[in-house]
Amino acid sequence: MRLRDAGHVVALAGGVGGAKLADGLAQVLGERLTVVVNTGDDFEHLGFHISPDLDTVIYTLAGIANPATGWGVADETWNFMDQIARFGGPTWFKLGDRDLATHALRSERLWAGDTLSAITDALCQALGISARIVPMSDDPVRTVVYSGSERLAFQDYFVRLQAQVPVTALSFDGAASASPSPEFARLMGGGRADAIIICPSNPYLSVDPILSVPGVRAWIENAGVPVVSVSPIVGGAAIKGPAAKIMAELGLEVSSLTVAKHYAAFVTGLMIDVADAALVAPIEETGVRTRVRPTIMRDARDRRQVAEDCLSFADSLRRL
Amino acid sequence: MRLRDAGHVVALAGGVGGAKLADGLAQVLGERLTVVVNTGDDFEHLGFHISPDLDTVIYTLAGIANPATGWGVADETWNFMDQIARFGGPTWFKLGDRDLATHALRSERLWAGDTLSAITDALCQALGISARIVPMSDDPVRTVVYSGSERLAFQDYFVRLQAQVPVTALSFDGAASASPSPEFARLMGGGRADAIIICPSNPYLSVDPILSVPGVRAWIENAGVPVVSVSPIVGGAAIKGPAAKIMAELGLEVSSLTVAKHYAAFVTGLMIDVADAALVAPIEETGVRTRVRPTIMRDARDRRQVAEDCLSFADSLRRL
Repeated sequence: MRLRDAGHVVALAGGVGGAKLADGLAQVLGERLTVVVNTGDDFEHLGFHISPDLDTVIYTLAGIANPATGWGVADETWNFMDQIARFGGPTWFKLGDRDLATHALRSERLWAGDTLSAITDALCQALGISARIVPMSDDPVRTVVYSGSERLAFQDYFVRLQAQVPVTALSFDGAASASPSPEFARLMGGGRADAIIICPSNPYLSVDPILSVPGVRAWIENAGVPVVSVSPIVGGAAIKGPAAKIMAELGLEVSSLTVAKHYAAFVTGLMIDVADAALVAPIEETGVRTRVRPTIMRDARDRRQVAEDCLSFADSLRRL
Repeated sequence: MRLRDAGHVVALAGGVGGAKLADGLAQVLGERLTVVVNTGDDFEHLGFHISPDLDTVIYTLAGIANPATGWGVADETWNFMDQIARFGGPTWFKLGDRDLATHALRSERLWAGDTLSAITDALCQALGISARIVPMSDDPVRTVVYSGSERLAFQDYFVRLQAQVPVTALSFDGAASASPSPEFARLMGGGRADAIIICPSNPYLSVDPILSVPGVRAWIENAGVPVVSVSPIVGGAAIKGPAAKIMAELGLEVSSLTVAKHYAAFVTGLMIDVADAALVAPIEETGVRTRVRPTIMRDARDRRQVAEDCLSFADSLRRL
């Protein structure tokens, strides 16, 4: 049996890069894919509860993501934002007119007592997404960025300050008392997962929050199935976002080898880009198997190809 | 002293018709005008607190109202609403993309504990409105429409059902325990009001809720200043909205005479349209003085003229 033809896959994802691979996996697997999404970036803004990574994954899998930015909705307009500016309101976090519908519907249902999981299901159904998308937790977990003595809420760091201050430490507030979301808990408690894929999201900002939810790391370590990651670092740089910058600020080498070491305790295989073929030997020394493939995803076909490569890599690791 | 040159005027207003006269009065009086606005139409929708009459008055006095509808903002777009429809959300209450900025900012501040009065002040300042616009109360008062045994929240009646069911009774829930907003209370407690104008709003749906706030009716009756209203009924029909329909449903004659009788206890003068000149004698028999003028306001000049006529009518009543 090959994973592409049967079997259920769980993917852990953050924002734009993770959503691209999740989309490739969804093209191949359809409803046999569950994407567990980081909610450490969630925040309250202008009275809305905003779940940026969930939205990016939802919009990407629904085929309505803005192709230019990776986040937000295609064919977007900005009249809400213009009017907010006219009122002297905050404009540092861009909320498009179409995108707002998601925030309004989600916020209304959250305030009424619904769970983030149930709301995410409803949004996915409305948009015809066959893969299952679940938040890592229905409880609040908030990524906090420390820059020296300064403590920054994640979006303050990431969007307002454009990640322009050095990161000295990170914490995931609320994680210790958070539970995995019900569907994630079901998978962890014996539901079917024939492979676990860690998408090429920022290891520190997008994947670590998911791993910080109690039980998740132990589940991955003991799942007894291939755990494959695709490195978000290619040729010593991040495809998108501040992953490389943060590595450097934390005193780490900006390299897929650093990614391998970061995940070594539980990842069985790391797919690295052809540009990093020279890293095969040092990565395999850490006990992580490697596969070298083109990993940059420019269009839907690239996404599908990286997903196929990822799944066949996982197949090969299962047979070992 | 003529009111147009000195003196402070308090106007009571509801939605579109009331906003037009309020705009005319604001053109003449500027910061010497306080508009007290009905909040019985306020409701929660899609997670927003929406104050339709406040918004109509604010947008109209700011010169950004949608000239075609009377409500909402000019140059509006509807992409939020399109996306809500795509998600299967409620679309019966139209929220434009620009208009949403008002709802989001107001809601966020309300949830944070600010008063509707303080938020209204801030919105008016941001839009450069020199007149003072105040909600009738910062406490929730909710107009409820009864149609036989059916009990309808106001916007369900007015927007969702397009006022297509017969009104048999009205109530203003919460009114008995509501206080006038601080600035309204200040005016009622001895602040300067040289005349009180009741705008051509729906007497039952827009003005009665204001009068239902404890102390308001007694203040108007005992203010000792001219109380002038402009009839919203012209030639046996309402200029806009269901005022005439409701009169008929309540078994009343659809006429400015009915308006005069409704307000007779406290109105000293009723301005009626030239189309209704024949009603002067029967109205004056109720103890209400009349003035006959064109009252239909099609453009900014009409609004100013009706406002001037209204103020000179009040001047004449002061001199009696």
